[in-house]
Amino acid sequence: MKHEGNALPPYLHMDNGELWLTEDDRDNLKISYRIKEVIFAEPSEYQHVMILDSYDFGRMLVLDGVVQTTSIDGHIYNEMISHVPLQFHPEAKRVLIIGGGDCGAARETAKYAHLEAIDMVEIDEKVVRACKEHLPAVSGNLSDPRVRFVYDDGVVFVQEKENVYDVIMIDSSDPVGPAEALFSPEFYANVHRALKADGLMVCQSQSPIFHLDILKRTYRNIRELFPHVLVYTAVVPTYPGGLWSFTIGSKRPLDFPVQTTIPNDTKYVNDGIFRQCFALPAFLRSALEVE
Amino acid sequence: MKHEGNALPPYLHMDNGELWLTEDDRDNLKISYRIKEVIFAEPSEYQHVMILDSYDFGRMLVLDGVVQTTSIDGHIYNEMISHVPLQFHPEAKRVLIIGGGDCGAARETAKYAHLEAIDMVEIDEKVVRACKEHLPAVSGNLSDPRVRFVYDDGVVFVQEKENVYDVIMIDSSDPVGPAEALFSPEFYANVHRALKADGLMVCQSQSPIFHLDILKRTYRNIRELFPHVLVYTAVVPTYPGGLWSFTIGSKRPLDFPVQTTIPNDTKYVNDGIFRQCFALPAFLRSALEVE
Repeated sequence: MKHEGNALPPYLHMDNGELWLTEDDRDNLKISYRIKEVIFAEPSEYQHVMILDSYDFGRMLVLDGVVQTTSIDGHIYNEMISHVPLQFHPEAKRVLIIGGGDCGAARETAKYAHLEAIDMVEIDEKVVRACKEHLPAVSGNLSDPRVRFVYDDGVVFVQEKENVYDVIMIDSSDPVGPAEALFSPEFYANVHRALKADGLMVCQSQSPIFHLDILKRTYRNIRELFPHVLVYTAVVPTYPGGLWSFTIGSKRPLDFPVQTTIPNDTKYVNDGIFRQCFALPAFLRSALEVE
Repeated sequence: MKHEGNALPPYLHMDNGELWLTEDDRDNLKISYRIKEVIFAEPSEYQHVMILDSYDFGRMLVLDGVVQTTSIDGHIYNEMISHVPLQFHPEAKRVLIIGGGDCGAARETAKYAHLEAIDMVEIDEKVVRACKEHLPAVSGNLSDPRVRFVYDDGVVFVQEKENVYDVIMIDSSDPVGPAEALFSPEFYANVHRALKADGLMVCQSQSPIFHLDILKRTYRNIRELFPHVLVYTAVVPTYPGGLWSFTIGSKRPLDFPVQTTIPNDTKYVNDGIFRQCFALPAFLRSALEVE
């Protein structure tokens, strides 16, 4: 699917014979990526879905013109949202992933032999199919029989569940468009009910630099529901601000394991990163009023 | 200094009545910042110097069209390059800062009462004057009498010194243009000689994501000279890749202090961040062949 300047998909433009994607969703900051090739570009029922091959970041998943994950750094986010919470629940059997259409969180989660079932509820089947076929660096061509794909609205799916899951991972996009409801207090309450009596949840809680308000609200909402809450951070190079936050809410105490069970084929997270990711910068400790 | 579209400084352009800076130095990635006002714009003997007031990052130092530091995140870099190495040398008396024209490293360093002299050698006086006058969020209007400004080439300055400094901080810009020589083995050898018998140095060693080759070379060069070497990372939102690396080379063992002496008015670094910043991601441990 080569483009020579005619019939370009939306969000792309030519400049001096070069193909570029410009993220145009922010008022005061625009990032432009030089593109080698459009691999896939189709509107779905929910959003515009592209897989682009870029010069600096390799293949990228782009939704409504905004880069979601890339071949060079998608593993950082996906390893951090899955391996970190799983260290606090070594006996977990059933995991639910809400969102996570790039399949990377499911791929990492499936590395734990003790898990019996991994339900992945993603509203947009087209995103999953595009990533499985065209973004193997992130999706890993996932074919584990324990992973069950459900193409449904995570908000509705979780309303009907009670005392079912050990771990729930909320792997949403930004809180605009399809993912907005995944940041509401009602949704977290439903997640709480869907968890077993000693279960825990994790969600991505946005950039502490550019969306500190969202992180603070998320942290407050989760603290109202769960007795044990921890925020951790990771660097995600393709998200503006670099620094990204995740929040764990847990019914069980969050005891740090003496030995971690992180598989040794990860590229980012390891025992040291697991133990350090909870050390928060001074401004963040103060913003969250952490002791 | 308002601009209405005529007589714009270089690197800036108008788009639909809005003023923008586009970083144009990379072939495949362009970042554009919306600008409120041009505060200062003059060529120096070495480079083009601007202080711009931007919408998302506040005031920014821009050299040859490339953002160097900003009001919202300049403290992260400056706190990390100064407070971290100083924890390993609680008896230090004399510090040399090479580069660091934004004055932020000098400002942080001056917070230690036990230091007697802080020499700052920056090649470009115009950068220092612009930051002191127009970028107080980073420079802090530094007027500590222990800080001596020397406007000279750091490479030449350090050639003539032997057994003088306890700590040397190499706060350079990217290894192109004026800063290129600050990444050479000869320069590090001169730094080694300028240090006392139990001294230590730190340098910024670029992005582990986009310039892993420079980090690996820097690490190798420093290991050849110093018996004790540690790499650490921090998140610097305005640098592409977000993740940034620093390398310490030391003649004294790098023993972690039981109690840190980090001042309590920092915004990013604290005891927890100091202890965690040496935990390297899996890919970086493997690239540097750290045990």
